[in-house]
Amino acid sequence: MIPAQSAHSQALAARLQRFMDDHVYPNEALYEDQLHAGPEQFRVPPILEELKTQAKAQGLWNLFLPHSDNGAGLSNLDYAPLAEIMGRVHYASEIFNCSAPDTGNMEVLDRYGTQAQKDRWLKPLLEGEIRSAYCMTEPAVASSDATNIQTRIERDGGDYVINGRKWFITNAYHPNTRIFILMGKTDPDAPRHLQQSQILIPTDTPGIRWIRPLPVMGFFDLPKGQGELLFENVRVPAENIILGEGRGFEISQGRLGPGRIHNCMRILGQCERMLELTCQRLLSRVAFGKPLASQSVWQERVADARIQINMARLLTQRAAHLMDMVGNKEARSEISQIKVAATRIGRMVADIAVAAHGAAGLTNDFGLGYGFTRMQMLRMGDGPDDVHNRVIARAEFDKYRPARSMGDEA
Amino acid sequence: MIPAQSAHSQALAARLQRFMDDHVYPNEALYEDQLHAGPEQFRVPPILEELKTQAKAQGLWNLFLPHSDNGAGLSNLDYAPLAEIMGRVHYASEIFNCSAPDTGNMEVLDRYGTQAQKDRWLKPLLEGEIRSAYCMTEPAVASSDATNIQTRIERDGGDYVINGRKWFITNAYHPNTRIFILMGKTDPDAPRHLQQSQILIPTDTPGIRWIRPLPVMGFFDLPKGQGELLFENVRVPAENIILGEGRGFEISQGRLGPGRIHNCMRILGQCERMLELTCQRLLSRVAFGKPLASQSVWQERVADARIQINMARLLTQRAAHLMDMVGNKEARSEISQIKVAATRIGRMVADIAVAAHGAAGLTNDFGLGYGFTRMQMLRMGDGPDDVHNRVIARAEFDKYRPARSMGDEA
Amino acid sequence: MIPAQSAHSQALAARLQRFMDDHVYPNEALYEDQLHAGPEQFRVPPILEELKTQAKAQGLWNLFLPHSDNGAGLSNLDYAPLAEIMGRVHYASEIFNCSAPDTGNMEVLDRYGTQAQKDRWLKPLLEGEIRSAYCMTEPAVASSDATNIQTRIERDGGDYVINGRKWFITNAYHPNTRIFILMGKTDPDAPRHLQQSQILIPTDTPGIRWIRPLPVMGFFDLPKGQGELLFENVRVPAENIILGEGRGFEISQGRLGPGRIHNCMRILGQCERMLELTCQRLLSRVAFGKPLASQSVWQERVADARIQINMARLLTQRAAHLMDMVGNKEARSEISQIKVAATRIGRMVADIAVAAHGAAGLTNDFGLGYGFTRMQMLRMGDGPDDVHNRVIARAEFDKYRPARSMGDEA
Amino acid sequence: MIPAQSAHSQALAARLQRFMDDHVYPNEALYEDQLHAGPEQFRVPPILEELKTQAKAQGLWNLFLPHSDNGAGLSNLDYAPLAEIMGRVHYASEIFNCSAPDTGNMEVLDRYGTQAQKDRWLKPLLEGEIRSAYCMTEPAVASSDATNIQTRIERDGGDYVINGRKWFITNAYHPNTRIFILMGKTDPDAPRHLQQSQILIPTDTPGIRWIRPLPVMGFFDLPKGQGELLFENVRVPAENIILGEGRGFEISQGRLGPGRIHNCMRILGQCERMLELTCQRLLSRVAFGKPLASQSVWQERVADARIQINMARLLTQRAAHLMDMVGNKEARSEISQIKVAATRIGRMVADIAVAAHGAAGLTNDFGLGYGFTRMQMLRMGDGPDDVHNRVIARAEFDKYRPARSMGDEA
Repeated sequence: MIPAQSAHSQALAARLQRFMDDHVYPNEALYEDQLHAGPEQFRVPPILEELKTQAKAQGLWNLFLPHSDNGAGLSNLDYAPLAEIMGRVHYASEIFNCSAPDTGNMEVLDRYGTQAQKDRWLKPLLEGEIRSAYCMTEPAVASSDATNIQTRIERDGGDYVINGRKWFITNAYHPNTRIFILMGKTDPDAPRHLQQSQILIPTDTPGIRWIRPLPVMGFFDLPKGQGELLFENVRVPAENIILGEGRGFEISQGRLGPGRIHNCMRILGQCERMLELTCQRLLSRVAFGKPLASQSVWQERVADARIQINMARLLTQRAAHLMDMVGNKEARSEISQIKVAATRIGRMVADIAVAAHGAAGLTNDFGLGYGFTRMQMLRMGDGPDDVHNRVIARAEFDKYRPARSMGDEA
Repeated sequence: MIPAQSAHSQALAARLQRFMDDHVYPNEALYEDQLHAGPEQFRVPPILEELKTQAKAQGLWNLFLPHSDNGAGLSNLDYAPLAEIMGRVHYASEIFNCSAPDTGNMEVLDRYGTQAQKDRWLKPLLEGEIRSAYCMTEPAVASSDATNIQTRIERDGGDYVINGRKWFITNAYHPNTRIFILMGKTDPDAPRHLQQSQILIPTDTPGIRWIRPLPVMGFFDLPKGQGELLFENVRVPAENIILGEGRGFEISQGRLGPGRIHNCMRILGQCERMLELTCQRLLSRVAFGKPLASQSVWQERVADARIQINMARLLTQRAAHLMDMVGNKEARSEISQIKVAATRIGRMVADIAVAAHGAAGLTNDFGLGYGFTRMQMLRMGDGPDDVHNRVIARAEFDKYRPARSMGDEA
Repeated sequence: MIPAQSAHSQALAARLQRFMDDHVYPNEALYEDQLHAGPEQFRVPPILEELKTQAKAQGLWNLFLPHSDNGAGLSNLDYAPLAEIMGRVHYASEIFNCSAPDTGNMEVLDRYGTQAQKDRWLKPLLEGEIRSAYCMTEPAVASSDATNIQTRIERDGGDYVINGRKWFITNAYHPNTRIFILMGKTDPDAPRHLQQSQILIPTDTPGIRWIRPLPVMGFFDLPKGQGELLFENVRVPAENIILGEGRGFEISQGRLGPGRIHNCMRILGQCERMLELTCQRLLSRVAFGKPLASQSVWQERVADARIQINMARLLTQRAAHLMDMVGNKEARSEISQIKVAATRIGRMVADIAVAAHGAAGLTNDFGLGYGFTRMQMLRMGDGPDDVHNRVIARAEFDKYRPARSMGDEA
Repeated sequence: MIPAQSAHSQALAARLQRFMDDHVYPNEALYEDQLHAGPEQFRVPPILEELKTQAKAQGLWNLFLPHSDNGAGLSNLDYAPLAEIMGRVHYASEIFNCSAPDTGNMEVLDRYGTQAQKDRWLKPLLEGEIRSAYCMTEPAVASSDATNIQTRIERDGGDYVINGRKWFITNAYHPNTRIFILMGKTDPDAPRHLQQSQILIPTDTPGIRWIRPLPVMGFFDLPKGQGELLFENVRVPAENIILGEGRGFEISQGRLGPGRIHNCMRILGQCERMLELTCQRLLSRVAFGKPLASQSVWQERVADARIQINMARLLTQRAAHLMDMVGNKEARSEISQIKVAATRIGRMVADIAVAAHGAAGLTNDFGLGYGFTRMQMLRMGDGPDDVHNRVIARAEFDKYRPARSMGDEA
């Protein structure tokens, strides 16, 4: 059972769709031109800021926050179709102040932040005045196992001192980014899931070194793309800790669920757009005397894309609904299921779209070169399939085990 | 959006589940024993008749008919979970008088039959007193393209005379089968979709030759399994035609939709059962010092099975709901989607279950030898994937074509 | 590098091919008729014995033994093309006294047997007067890990006493089978690979119970098919042990290599035949106005089958050559590679062939119902992929490890 | 049968390997540094020129030309292992003057060029003094069907005038490129395969517009990467035509065979290197308490990579040998087979390698970001799988057709 979209969500979806049609699609070419123009590599395209202003003025803003007065009051299920609409254009979420990792960061601050933290960071984030980043993954270890994390957060008097190297930090190089939330270890000797803490680090804190922007298969995707940072004796006041020492794992669990719903729905939005392009291409190209659209291999691929997209959307909606009903923790198998399914399907559809476009699929003329690599990155982010498959399988096995103590190996 | 199961359907599901728990599962071994015992190869296991009597007495009977006073008044969506519950045991549908092809035949008679046809055939079918068969596929041609059908139905005075060879006829050898519905050509020169008619042929009509029972990869599955029949100058009165000459294609379109929903849900019931067996097996077997359940390859396979089953169920429910809302014809892409998806997933889960059981998976000790071949048969029945992919792909392409006249090749 | 087939092997291949053309193919229908005729379920078709007599008279006999005066003196590489030719008909190997498990049993006796063992069992096996079986797999444990084996072989005075249950014993019900070679544990406390022994058990020894023939997805394939046996206090003289106590694992390693080459080449022979059938079918069937052979989905499947078959053949030939050069042990990754590759490809080609034949592919009219299940059985026999992948992967990893002590977990 | 590598080839392979070990690998970091240094985007790294000089001095030069005094006299089969060695570093072929498209262009000139054409273009190419490009693919049509080509080559007095747009031209922006070979239509009304011609166009001819370098999923890979060119009334003397009007298709068929062998072997070299990286990574990373190398999902992937690489190498060697024996035309199914198989396997291994490296696999720290996109490009270049599958399938079907006239649709 997947409840119908609420009237509120439907109305927002209609307005969002109109905004996309009226303002976003017509300016896609301009966005790309501005992005690649001029000497300033990391410049935000002015049209993006204009679109943000318009969206905010129309109240299409901060739609994501489920349990807060600061958001639109949408459940995960009601937010899902909005995320899909935004997902059709890779930067559209930002126009509505709904882009990762800001959404997750705002949610963390909204739920767990002190009033002071909220005043200083949440407020400007909600206003879209600043951007933020989340520093989690480390190059030196398999970060999908959070216990591997090596970055240290050490108490020193009234401060914490951070040392470590992080990468694949979205927004690290964004000119508007003002705050990092960093995951590190305050106590390596504590029990497995109590070693980590999360802490706020203003970007102008001394000791932060911007090592390099990171390409994803050739795309640096600046200014919103990935970066590598080195934290060397970075010192922040003790009140910058979020929720308290040892609660980093708990916080990260909380942010994962909605983030995955958002990601999966955005992927499906991108998939729909790639499938549209694919169909149009296949109808227009002729080989060996027939349009590609009439060749059964292409019918098979298009049908498969349609089936997989539809299934992934339903699975994601069901997971969203379950989260709304029973919470992230109880829905953890379902959240892992959509992570595996939607990202796999995203890559699969991207593969089909690239192939349908021939050489043009390798370029970015149809957005497919970038689109493919983006699907590849989303597939690998948020933990590899192996980690999620383990979660899903254990939930199955547990149905047939009388009892299992915490921490048992399945 | 997939509406919640109605209270009526929920109540039926609960009663059905209890019946399965109390009467069906405890008698599974007895059924198999009776089936294989004694000299009479085609004997119906007595326990099956006993279970039918009990189910009928409890009103768990004819649950499938959606739009008729004769059925339980369930929509396709509301019937779906019942079909899944029944699907867990390969003969359980019959216990509740809900087994193919009788369901399709009853629906055809209910919707299109004359009063006389209903009195003579529908009534005893609804009572479970007789069984029926549907004669569609022909060995000599690719029957997935209905225009290939060669069996002739020729008018001769007040009769029709049938000549042709049909196979893969479920129930052909069932001792209780009394009536065949046959698809054949009344007018090979009519437009493509007006050449075919459907006609009622009592099994005691002279000229019918039972050629042979047909194995499905070694399983004859008698008495309910497949058979091959030859019709040689088989003569029936003209009033045996259903709905009129040239309407065979129309009738077959009508029966396909619900039949596929039923099939797909039964497949998912069987998948769930195979996955249960798989998990239990993997928990109990040790290789190289570890239970198979703790090996990541098996976690991957179990997770994949879970994901695929869940997705296929949602897709089927959505197709059922769409059929309820807009009818079979408008939902034809969705019906094709579930045919492709659910049967593919059925084979995939069967493959995993067989592999998890090692050599025992090849035998029928856990029902997996038979279960696998059944999945294989369902995968190939009702038209190969290629036909359905064509339907699905055309629906996609049509979105981008200004107009398409009927009959155009995509 | 794969050396050319020797002149000796080429000459044998030509004679073998002629024998197949002149005697085997023309009698295929007769074989099937005789097999299914009459009351005696386990009867060997008389045509098989006639063909054996002819083959023996022509010297097309015992071609498999590589290192023995009793064989044709062919290397593994030179025997490979002969095995492929025989593989095209599922019982053809037996005509030339080259069928498993007799081949492996003869090789074991030839290499490791005492003179008395050879006189009593090897001689009549080489003459084709008797058949034999190999009792390895047990229903109660994951037998792919040989240390799991539970059947006991216990010394008692001048005898050994055997207790245990074995299944998937080819030839167990064959009326000509006179001798079992059984793998069991003589010393469960010995080091892992020294616990097992192999022993000769005449089929008329008291205490052997024939539990049941075993179906492979519905096919009992008698008399040469699978059986389950119970050994209860079965007593044989101590001299029936082969090579000595604790050497069972060593013996089984020796027999595995050639057996896998034979199996893989026979699979490829069967694949070629299935591909022939597929092409002929696709050329003859029309759907939606075009022969299936002109539809690109079928071109893709046929091409894929051709590519995979060709690759698997080359890989098998290379493994055979490597075995000839460096022995089974050094070639163990390569032997595992062909086990995984050829059996996977066999199933894949069977899948394509079945699908191309539609409903007829499920029956045995083209041998495809049986053929598919045979591929499935071969895929699962001789250890599941997981075991072989482990072997192959370790060989890769070992290239990058300075040193690895025996028994380390990879 | 795949003959052993000749002594000549073995000796060259050993010297090549030593050169790679001594000179290429130690300078990989330097190459990348030089490539990305400085303002001049299209600069050839000086180390590349130094390595070329050394290789030429050692006689490791022009190893590819099979039938010419200008080459090393190696058969396709003997050249294959050299191509694999070079393939391990993406620019290594160029060091030995063996890089595409120069190899194909040199072969065309060597086989079909006039003495004047050879003197002017072949000589400096063989010396490595200049580079060349091949202009074939067009953005506006499905170029895999050569009859779709739209670029015109029109006779005008003593000249030809070229008009058209070409893209995916390797070396288009290379500063040393001096000559283009272009495929276009001289007579659109001629029979299908006689419409095209190939013509030499010096890069300094007026009317050529360098439209843009083309990214492959974000990598411009300059200076050797892809470019788009517009030819507007480009005028060259009539003697620049190669072999004569209408022979373009014939010439392109000739160049395809060896080019595909080279490509496939280079792909396998890259695969081997990616597999090495993968194994090393998996041995060094720990998740959930175990090295990734000991997890069965990774064993499965590594084993699969090993199997697929080995099979593809053997298939390529066999195709090379067949080309040596019977020529490109007779070996056309085999050449299509390796195109499909090797490029598919290349992408598959790249996928595994990227996944094994986690986020680092997306970057170019291990060359995997670029490596993956290169595999993707090679997969799509030289005609999509659909075209090759058609060739392969037709060759199969033809075995069962009594006769087929040229040009028939399969």
